[in-house]
Amino acid sequence: MIELYTAATPNGWKASVALEEMGLPYTVKPVNLMKGEQKTDAFLTMNPNGRIPVIKDKENHDHVVFESGAIMIYLAEKTGQFLPSEITRRSQVLQWLMFQMGGVGPMMGQANVFYRYLDEKIPVAIDRYQNEVRRLFTVLNGHLADHEYLVDDYSIADMANWCWVRTYEWSGVSMEGLAHLQRWKNSIEARPAARRGVAVPNKIDKEALIKGAKNVVTR
Amino acid sequence: MIELYTAATPNGWKASVALEEMGLPYTVKPVNLMKGEQKTDAFLTMNPNGRIPVIKDKENHDHVVFESGAIMIYLAEKTGQFLPSEITRRSQVLQWLMFQMGGVGPMMGQANVFYRYLDEKIPVAIDRYQNEVRRLFTVLNGHLADHEYLVDDYSIADMANWCWVRTYEWSGVSMEGLAHLQRWKNSIEARPAARRGVAVPNKIDKEALIKGAKNVVTR
Repeated sequence: MIELYTAATPNGWKASVALEEMGLPYTVKPVNLMKGEQKTDAFLTMNPNGRIPVIKDKENHDHVVFESGAIMIYLAEKTGQFLPSEITRRSQVLQWLMFQMGGVGPMMGQANVFYRYLDEKIPVAIDRYQNEVRRLFTVLNGHLADHEYLVDDYSIADMANWCWVRTYEWSGVSMEGLAHLQRWKNSIEARPAARRGVAVPNKIDKEALIKGAKNVVTR
Repeated sequence: MIELYTAATPNGWKASVALEEMGLPYTVKPVNLMKGEQKTDAFLTMNPNGRIPVIKDKENHDHVVFESGAIMIYLAEKTGQFLPSEITRRSQVLQWLMFQMGGVGPMMGQANVFYRYLDEKIPVAIDRYQNEVRRLFTVLNGHLADHEYLVDDYSIADMANWCWVRTYEWSGVSMEGLAHLQRWKNSIEARPAARRGVAVPNKIDKEALIKGAKNVVTR
């Protein structure tokens, strides 16, 4: 059994989508970011960086994994799914995973900060990040023009990029004219496991509320 | 033989430090970023994202790898060095590699943009990124308080983080009071292979200049 400490963010979904796609049993431990639960001593013991998602693998001596990209690789290697072992294909999947980790994720994150969260609106910063995200989307679109998925079969690279790309409206970035990226996005959106993954932890929160506040608090 | 397309940046050094540490033979193909050589059609065929570093493995059907984090994993798996195969240690190395890919690298990069490159000085943005880098440095420092390296033996996670941390002055971030991080930084700085790695491609450029301009152009 895997314990998943998470919240409803693109990085959080990367972990729950991977768990759903791989068919691994897991329990969800919602982390309330607004209350700063990711900065408590108990959480920092698992991830000194104070960020979700984090998993704890009860089947592997409570091994803890933080950083969503590292979680995806860990789960893929644990199950032998969605990350080829053949060196060339494997390397290609890791390249597009890193493209998300170092590019799409951080740049959409910064676009969100300046476009959504900061009271002071700084056009130079908003434009910088929205333009960079659009550029990264264009790179994905060009690659997907002649690839159904980023690397042959659907992989953790697709899951990782999709969890961010699907939130383009929140970042204020257009997907107009990027037909291949839209086609790819829609095809992942149609996967039941991916849809279940992005309903975590929202869905679970609702269930917990039905069961009563005590369950929520103990989580 | 590996061909390394690179420039003198922290991400570029990650590749050359790894190659030097692993003792792999390689040829350097300097990419002039000021001239936009990373955006030429020839380069975009290798990396559609138009970023250095890129490697081409002549021993593996000219397999191309972009994204510095993916290059490090590829080389580590090719040589069986600096990335354990045992699942727990391996996962820990990948966690700290991802911490650099998604955190230290992008945040120092943004600090550099607002602190160094943009003519317009925007205090909110400069402070945001310098504070975030200092926070990430503090996370590293805390972890290194009771670890000689990030995970047991020196690994690609140390190389990756070190290539960025060593440029703290360029980002305008202080390392004062972070004694463990400084100790770790100095111990890597003392490694001959690491020092050779961060002299690439500068050193090579000089040699090329001595040999004459023709060699430089053909690279």
